[in-house]
Amino acid sequence: MIVRPRPGFLRLLFVVRGTILPRVLPHVLGVAALASLVVLTLKQGYLRLPVTSPAPLSLLGIALSIFLGFRNNACYDRWWEGRKQWGALIIEVRAFTHAAIALLDDGRAELPVAGRQAARRLVHRTIAFPYALAAHLRGLDAGEDIGRYLMDPERSRVLGSGNRPNAILREHQLELASLLREGRLTDITWGALNERVHAMMSVFTACERIRLTPLPFAYTVLLHRTAYLFCLLLPFGLAESMGWFTPVLSAMIAYTFFGLDVLSEELEEPFGNAPNDLPLLAMTRTAEINLLEALGEPQPEPLRPKDFILG
Amino acid sequence: MIVRPRPGFLRLLFVVRGTILPRVLPHVLGVAALASLVVLTLKQGYLRLPVTSPAPLSLLGIALSIFLGFRNNACYDRWWEGRKQWGALIIEVRAFTHAAIALLDDGRAELPVAGRQAARRLVHRTIAFPYALAAHLRGLDAGEDIGRYLMDPERSRVLGSGNRPNAILREHQLELASLLREGRLTDITWGALNERVHAMMSVFTACERIRLTPLPFAYTVLLHRTAYLFCLLLPFGLAESMGWFTPVLSAMIAYTFFGLDVLSEELEEPFGNAPNDLPLLAMTRTAEINLLEALGEPQPEPLRPKDFILG
Amino acid sequence: MIVRPRPGFLRLLFVVRGTILPRVLPHVLGVAALASLVVLTLKQGYLRLPVTSPAPLSLLGIALSIFLGFRNNACYDRWWEGRKQWGALIIEVRAFTHAAIALLDDGRAELPVAGRQAARRLVHRTIAFPYALAAHLRGLDAGEDIGRYLMDPERSRVLGSGNRPNAILREHQLELASLLREGRLTDITWGALNERVHAMMSVFTACERIRLTPLPFAYTVLLHRTAYLFCLLLPFGLAESMGWFTPVLSAMIAYTFFGLDVLSEELEEPFGNAPNDLPLLAMTRTAEINLLEALGEPQPEPLRPKDFILG
Amino acid sequence: MIVRPRPGFLRLLFVVRGTILPRVLPHVLGVAALASLVVLTLKQGYLRLPVTSPAPLSLLGIALSIFLGFRNNACYDRWWEGRKQWGALIIEVRAFTHAAIALLDDGRAELPVAGRQAARRLVHRTIAFPYALAAHLRGLDAGEDIGRYLMDPERSRVLGSGNRPNAILREHQLELASLLREGRLTDITWGALNERVHAMMSVFTACERIRLTPLPFAYTVLLHRTAYLFCLLLPFGLAESMGWFTPVLSAMIAYTFFGLDVLSEELEEPFGNAPNDLPLLAMTRTAEINLLEALGEPQPEPLRPKDFILG
Amino acid sequence: MIVRPRPGFLRLLFVVRGTILPRVLPHVLGVAALASLVVLTLKQGYLRLPVTSPAPLSLLGIALSIFLGFRNNACYDRWWEGRKQWGALIIEVRAFTHAAIALLDDGRAELPVAGRQAARRLVHRTIAFPYALAAHLRGLDAGEDIGRYLMDPERSRVLGSGNRPNAILREHQLELASLLREGRLTDITWGALNERVHAMMSVFTACERIRLTPLPFAYTVLLHRTAYLFCLLLPFGLAESMGWFTPVLSAMIAYTFFGLDVLSEELEEPFGNAPNDLPLLAMTRTAEINLLEALGEPQPEPLRPKDFILG
Repeated sequence: MIVRPRPGFLRLLFVVRGTILPRVLPHVLGVAALASLVVLTLKQGYLRLPVTSPAPLSLLGIALSIFLGFRNNACYDRWWEGRKQWGALIIEVRAFTHAAIALLDDGRAELPVAGRQAARRLVHRTIAFPYALAAHLRGLDAGEDIGRYLMDPERSRVLGSGNRPNAILREHQLELASLLREGRLTDITWGALNERVHAMMSVFTACERIRLTPLPFAYTVLLHRTAYLFCLLLPFGLAESMGWFTPVLSAMIAYTFFGLDVLSEELEEPFGNAPNDLPLLAMTRTAEINLLEALGEPQPEPLRPKDFILG
Repeated sequence: MIVRPRPGFLRLLFVVRGTILPRVLPHVLGVAALASLVVLTLKQGYLRLPVTSPAPLSLLGIALSIFLGFRNNACYDRWWEGRKQWGALIIEVRAFTHAAIALLDDGRAELPVAGRQAARRLVHRTIAFPYALAAHLRGLDAGEDIGRYLMDPERSRVLGSGNRPNAILREHQLELASLLREGRLTDITWGALNERVHAMMSVFTACERIRLTPLPFAYTVLLHRTAYLFCLLLPFGLAESMGWFTPVLSAMIAYTFFGLDVLSEELEEPFGNAPNDLPLLAMTRTAEINLLEALGEPQPEPLRPKDFILG
Repeated sequence: MIVRPRPGFLRLLFVVRGTILPRVLPHVLGVAALASLVVLTLKQGYLRLPVTSPAPLSLLGIALSIFLGFRNNACYDRWWEGRKQWGALIIEVRAFTHAAIALLDDGRAELPVAGRQAARRLVHRTIAFPYALAAHLRGLDAGEDIGRYLMDPERSRVLGSGNRPNAILREHQLELASLLREGRLTDITWGALNERVHAMMSVFTACERIRLTPLPFAYTVLLHRTAYLFCLLLPFGLAESMGWFTPVLSAMIAYTFFGLDVLSEELEEPFGNAPNDLPLLAMTRTAEINLLEALGEPQPEPLRPKDFILG
Repeated sequence: MIVRPRPGFLRLLFVVRGTILPRVLPHVLGVAALASLVVLTLKQGYLRLPVTSPAPLSLLGIALSIFLGFRNNACYDRWWEGRKQWGALIIEVRAFTHAAIALLDDGRAELPVAGRQAARRLVHRTIAFPYALAAHLRGLDAGEDIGRYLMDPERSRVLGSGNRPNAILREHQLELASLLREGRLTDITWGALNERVHAMMSVFTACERIRLTPLPFAYTVLLHRTAYLFCLLLPFGLAESMGWFTPVLSAMIAYTFFGLDVLSEELEEPFGNAPNDLPLLAMTRTAEINLLEALGEPQPEPLRPKDFILG
Repeated sequence: MIVRPRPGFLRLLFVVRGTILPRVLPHVLGVAALASLVVLTLKQGYLRLPVTSPAPLSLLGIALSIFLGFRNNACYDRWWEGRKQWGALIIEVRAFTHAAIALLDDGRAELPVAGRQAARRLVHRTIAFPYALAAHLRGLDAGEDIGRYLMDPERSRVLGSGNRPNAILREHQLELASLLREGRLTDITWGALNERVHAMMSVFTACERIRLTPLPFAYTVLLHRTAYLFCLLLPFGLAESMGWFTPVLSAMIAYTFFGLDVLSEELEEPFGNAPNDLPLLAMTRTAEINLLEALGEPQPEPLRPKDFILG
């Protein structure tokens, strides 16, 4: 995610880093070049255009804007839902940790040591979960980060699983059930903790849904194709009535349409590594710090943005 | 669902498979042919058009875009809700399985064998549920897949029912109630498992709702009809001012409008077999693998896309 | 609700039944007639129009499209929410039935007969609820259907109440409380069943909300009036530049605008008897069949659409 | 709220009562007068307008329509959310009443009288809550209606509080806690009733949120101002090309824009006394009738609309 | 937040305070000056514009309106969600307070004093939470306000934490757990109070999400840049056909587009100190008053708006 203080009203015009300008610039320049060529050949008399009104093109352009707007909205919703799911994850790991410590270990000496150890084990495993989820969504390994918070034989079971986040949650539920059987949890307090685990499972599956189900492919193709053809047609439609303004206006329209198309593509898959994607690693680190603080253990530093980008 | 790496910016223009181009091409070509005929007869002087401004047509076109945009949005919401429901199903079958195994069987020898068997029976029946639901929604049989995870006399009760997903959930609730009576579950842990069954019921009924209640028929007809007439009228409105650009522009507008109309139709019913429909079978297989892994039983292979299409 | 296989791409153009064409045709023809008159008098020189550009009319038309689109969206949301509420009702009556049978009667001989009878009574009363709700929403009686599933003195209490769905749910809660007092339900299992009754209450009240609170009247009037005046003004604005195309285009625009207005009106009140309204009776029958099947009692036939309309 | 049978297609054009016509008419006539003046001076040659195309004005008008549409949508959502919250209130008071009577008093003689009295007290206090909430939201007193259902010293505590709805709910929770301590409720049944009280608290706070947080002021000003200036500019832009149609079209556009602006303003604050606001008093009365019926006590008449307006 | 009685229809046109006029005025005047210059040089013959139709510019302007509208919608949704979260916070602190007092202290002498003290401690800590949250979101200290309601050693633990709201909730959960162990709460009543704490955690994390995740930066840049360039291009496109109306119309369009851009920016981050941001301090004070009233302790005055702005 791009993290930078919002530049001033005028500075915003000249920002390049973190924008989609580099990705669309070649195409925008291509449209401008085509437009210049059309105007030139027209002025030289080599070309005669039958078009006398730009209104029909406007119709197509407006229709396209409406459909691009809807697509953009749908992609933004996906991105924001991804962020909400990770927000919910932060809630749940914090709440699970607080409750586990409160119910099993309040730090007083008279409590049996086993409860304290169980609480610590539960919290450590909870730290491993966002690491496993982030790696699962980004197709990375992260075995080291996950393994640091687990002990064998559990560590090998989790790292050996094809679906590590799922495996971690299963360990959670097995441990909760055995705490219930040992009488350290009543069925009510078991239920309260189990509900948190269920909520983590919901986050996990919702993230998988966003990750594995892009917008319908035909939708993306239809809009991309129409936008492209439209921008290629534009210079022919404008040259007669706009003269040498044609390249400027064509380039601006192309910049807007291509820019929105590319931006929608980045937002559509919020868990990737593109600059506008969500900072999964930074959020994982935040959760790690919060949870270690609750245990009273030493904490790493929060992640800082590099070149305005938070990973 | 179409699963393919997103082609590059330019490659996207020439993709055919997985798009709705084949379905709308004849109609688009029809419009282009009509437009060519109009321009030709106009140029030859056989036709005189009274239209001197394309603006009124633009008005109709823009109004149509707005309404098509809204319809498209509604259809996409249905498709995405269908996906969300199946995501929720994956959550619930995973969570039910984890909880059932944790509460009834933690793999230790000192537990009574009956609990272990009950857990296995519950998980197997949970695997049968997505199979039954997918078949119910697609109008298929799938009796073999369902039957593999059930034992008689339950198998015949379920396969003989007119509504198999419903019958499976009833068996779940009868078994949970008998585990409660036998004291293997407390009323709290019974409640926790029962809530999962209720959530599966919700998914099932929500999918039935999407399946059985299309968009109001009159809405579909109104927009389809207006879009069609509009595209037939377009060449007459454009020919005077666009000349030989008329066929190109008419075809592009027709492609956009017909394409959106056809795509909306595919998304409206997300549980069918069209290329853009949801991959119910692949998701069912994923659930099967997860659940068998949790039981420690051998697992089938995940489904792979064929020709970029996941079934 | 209109239930018909979606006609083919071209057949859709000529469908009449189930569309709103019959309702708007007179008005559309009126606009076409006015437009013809305007063009005729203009051609004959009896009329001189000061309008030289249709652009200002376009502005009003586009503004109108945007507002009609929003209204249509709001009405569709009401219709779809109505459907969702009935879907939730189906979930709840199924889940309540499964749970009541599981907790009170598992069909084994060693259980006391009273539990079995209570389960049967609860399920029968649950069948009566959708009948009472559908009748309440449509302003019908349905006393016979409701009474078939109740026994005196309860039957007279319910049928004598001014708000029958409410009265049925009260009977449910009284019976559950007495089962709790008799020890047939623990407070946890009572809570699980009571939550289902609360959810039925939610559905009931949400349906009442949709039924009793239409869109703000001033909103409906504002849009209807502007759409109507716009269509009457249209021929004067188009005649100069469109000539004999004026009647055709005016009629198409009027068809779109009036059609959307009328359709919004039908969707606004989804529980009525118009062709596009929700099939309350069919859904009630489906619930009845499911619940009787769960009791093992004989079931009626599902409702079938008549002339493509499901009641 | 305006409650009237929807007039027929044509009658809708001439309805005045309940519409926002009276509020915007002066401004619409002002715009029409200005437009007439502009056309007159133009025709007389006293004025020369440099404008040769109405297209740029169209651009501003369309932009404005889009933004007005969004604002209108936001205001409608507030209105509908207000209605939903009151719907939820009806659900909760009904459900609380049913459950309180069922758990504390089933009308049989063998139950201790104290339970019956507690139930009656709880229900009476529940009737007072909507009265207190409606008065709180509308800035009225309603002390008499509230006091009728409370007994001293509780009555003085509630009426003396600066936030009466809040005070009523506190009394509820104190009474529930003392019933729990007396053993008339188990902690589970206490939890079930307490959840209803929490839901009433949610409704109350959500209504306060809508009441106290209007749309951002700058938003309202920006759109109102642009709409007004636009309508004043319109005659100058149209006069050249529309001639004597200018006053008609300007008035229609002003009617649409001002009407939507005024209507949005009414919907923005749904708990006021304007004709399109929500019928809080009628809904309060409905709840009162339902709850008294459940207690078997005499009930007042439902409120009837006066001049089509329900209070 | 700006709190002022809505000025009358005409007064709204001249309001300055609380609007975004001051922020955009320089840019609007710049556009007007440029437009005047263009018209002047055109009239003097120093400039020849090739543009003969403003229609292509309209196309860009309309596309821009659609995209600005969507962005504005997204920003408003963030603002409104921020408000909803604070509304939920008010619900939860009220409900927690009522329940804590009801369960631990009903004011009667026969109850042990310790319960009463625990209730008071819980409520005081609950008052500290909104103070800590508001300060956290606005980057302020507020250590004094928070410390007033805590006692050492808890005070130093909370004030020393890097994340004070989180630390306060952890103290809550530790205290609830110890009340559970002491038998002052059953596991059910513990569960009811713990659920409220979980809800406060949800609010906290949702506010952090809105605070830390702005709209994608590239989106903001793309729209800002296009809007700016569009407004600079506008005078050239309009001058030929609008003459001396060009500065007026350009300024109005620039006012609308820049105004919406600036307003979206303010709404995007609802927890800041800009005039249209949410009144966190006033809401915190309201919660403080409600909670102290419930304890029967002396209450501060509510915050009043200064210059129509509530802090």
